[in-house]
Amino acid sequence: MRNIQIDGERLWASLMEMAAIGATEKGGVCRLALTDLDKQSRDLFKRWCEEAGCAVTVDEMGNMFARRPGKEDGPPVMSGSHLDSQPTGGKFDGAYGVLAALEVIRTLNDHEVQTQAPVEVVVWTNEEGSRFSPAMMGSGVFAGEFEADEIRASVDHDGLTFGEELQRIGYAGEQRAGDHPAGAYFEAHIEQGPILESEETTIGVVTGGQGIRWYDIEFTGQEAHAGPTPMPRRRDAFVAAARIVQEVNAIGHRFAPRACATVGTGEVFPNSRNVIPGRVLLTVDMRHPEEDTLEQMESALRSACDALAAESGVEIAFSRLWALPPQPFDTQCVDAVREGARIEGYSHRDIVSGAGHDALFMARLAPTGMIFIPCEGGISHNEIENASKSDCSAGCNVLLHAIMQTAGGSA
Amino acid sequence: MRNIQIDGERLWASLMEMAAIGATEKGGVCRLALTDLDKQSRDLFKRWCEEAGCAVTVDEMGNMFARRPGKEDGPPVMSGSHLDSQPTGGKFDGAYGVLAALEVIRTLNDHEVQTQAPVEVVVWTNEEGSRFSPAMMGSGVFAGEFEADEIRASVDHDGLTFGEELQRIGYAGEQRAGDHPAGAYFEAHIEQGPILESEETTIGVVTGGQGIRWYDIEFTGQEAHAGPTPMPRRRDAFVAAARIVQEVNAIGHRFAPRACATVGTGEVFPNSRNVIPGRVLLTVDMRHPEEDTLEQMESALRSACDALAAESGVEIAFSRLWALPPQPFDTQCVDAVREGARIEGYSHRDIVSGAGHDALFMARLAPTGMIFIPCEGGISHNEIENASKSDCSAGCNVLLHAIMQTAGGSA
Repeated sequence: MRNIQIDGERLWASLMEMAAIGATEKGGVCRLALTDLDKQSRDLFKRWCEEAGCAVTVDEMGNMFARRPGKEDGPPVMSGSHLDSQPTGGKFDGAYGVLAALEVIRTLNDHEVQTQAPVEVVVWTNEEGSRFSPAMMGSGVFAGEFEADEIRASVDHDGLTFGEELQRIGYAGEQRAGDHPAGAYFEAHIEQGPILESEETTIGVVTGGQGIRWYDIEFTGQEAHAGPTPMPRRRDAFVAAARIVQEVNAIGHRFAPRACATVGTGEVFPNSRNVIPGRVLLTVDMRHPEEDTLEQMESALRSACDALAAESGVEIAFSRLWALPPQPFDTQCVDAVREGARIEGYSHRDIVSGAGHDALFMARLAPTGMIFIPCEGGISHNEIENASKSDCSAGCNVLLHAIMQTAGGSA
Repeated sequence: MRNIQIDGERLWASLMEMAAIGATEKGGVCRLALTDLDKQSRDLFKRWCEEAGCAVTVDEMGNMFARRPGKEDGPPVMSGSHLDSQPTGGKFDGAYGVLAALEVIRTLNDHEVQTQAPVEVVVWTNEEGSRFSPAMMGSGVFAGEFEADEIRASVDHDGLTFGEELQRIGYAGEQRAGDHPAGAYFEAHIEQGPILESEETTIGVVTGGQGIRWYDIEFTGQEAHAGPTPMPRRRDAFVAAARIVQEVNAIGHRFAPRACATVGTGEVFPNSRNVIPGRVLLTVDMRHPEEDTLEQMESALRSACDALAAESGVEIAFSRLWALPPQPFDTQCVDAVREGARIEGYSHRDIVSGAGHDALFMARLAPTGMIFIPCEGGISHNEIENASKSDCSAGCNVLLHAIMQTAGGSA
């Protein structure tokens, strides 16, 4: 197999042209799912794919598939991501994965590579979940995680449904979501974390996704006047909640180095300067690549809550809202990514995805791998999100290698 | 001096009749300052005072003075409180102090007691500060703490000014607030705390008011995705803030038994389940009867913030918003209250007022004392606020003794 390379300038130009759709003053992108801007980005993608000789099909969820035929007509090697953004999102989150896959197609064309299996670029609908909740709708229905009818009925802030809006922008296809076999799936993405940049490593070989558990914790004490209520008589819900904020953080450190544990939200009632808080709500996010460890983390948190409730007289109601099990990726796909980085001589390391990605759902259907590239300061979901041209090229070259190896290509 | 007693049934009937003005379904009172309901309560009070033979005058702040002449025409012994309530207030907070003082006048009439000094019942305008901020407006201007023009210009939620509303309800008097000498001041009030009830004590002999200090603390860390950000790289503003919530509580306990330290409010930004908080705002309320100890408490909190900022990498901006110095009451007035409780054979204890009262401002102008009676569960600023008929009578009998002793009375 000849060592061909992608065209980094062309990839960058496509990224910048796509980023102009919904561009914000601060250099970011606001391109919410199923808006006119989403339609524009889809139209541009479709035109580029057709110019690259691909046939574009759309399923009932608006997921788009641009197919480059292989020598055989079997299940394609798919690669892609999403074109929708956060309300104050950046140029790279999602778009990079889609356009890197398109650049692979263009490169295969340039070098007249014929792969055994077809190669498809895929755009998943509403990965962000900003306008319609939950996130990863398109890949979720595709993978059988969500019901198509429920997703179509989901409503945005203005009362518009997903189904109506998808129809309105002209991307509600006929094909049932999921009736589209996949031989393998690769997704390139910015890391959205600080590890690669801080270790000056170019390629993250993603070995899987962390398991995630979400909890709600409600603390009920006794609301009282902050002046005339002596300290020993208090049942202060905020003092109890603060102990649990500390404990969640301690659990994250105790199960180092791969655990994450975060209290993201806190609400205090009645939230008045001179009233002892009678009620506090916290939400907890815990992540780890291994189910057993997640179980231990949850158990440590439950024990801490029970002990504190007994000691403080504050009632603590603990509930698990949601659990996503850890999702290891396919060994061969992971190896293909690692091998691509090795061949190109890029510094690389194994890494676990902390964030949710369409690849996590695809991994239930087909052998899956992901490629991470560094992002500036580890920052994403922010208009200042940034990645370097050379890292974008590097990740795309690794994707090219992984796709060619999996699809069986020769130049 | 003959041992005369107030009429507990008459006092209770007046309390209930007053509580009908602005009565809420849950048994409380909503009688915001300068509303039509406030006017109704003032009209009723005025009628009762005139029926009791008093001349009622009103100053520019709407403070009302009902005068029962003494043998001498010197500065009166004043007693009263406020008739306005919290939006979801109770029947006793304020109204009890006003109607107990009126009951003293009625009792002096019944027994044809002639005091040396005149006795006045006073109603202070807008003690609660719920509709117009700050609290204790009427007594504050009277004591020179606030400027009359600034108070008149203060605006409620609907844009109406204090001055216009006072005029509208017909209680903007001619007399300059403060041009009204006071020989002494007594105020009877529900405790608004749990101490008397839990110790089964009838009378709180209030020795003064706690000093109060209010602080704002802002924590600035680094907002980041809760998934891909390893624990050691985090600058979590909520984890830092939680440490300070713990520390404030610890300071309250460390300076036991008279210190109170409370974090009443907390706001977390961006307050999203899977985002490490980048910013948290806390407010702190610290109270103690001694200025030196307050100073030590503040200093302990500042040190804790400094140490935490250095250790955690989270910026901590600490600011003191407001400070009310401790206000000891006049020894003779306090003794007069204690003596009244002793003569009547009521269980009693010295107590420091944790909450703000008009008496704290009056103490700057004249010898001042306060009488606390128990309230159910220590609960006030709540529609379920409650006090027993016998405790109301007891407090009023103590007030009668204190006023007669101070005014120089004989029956």
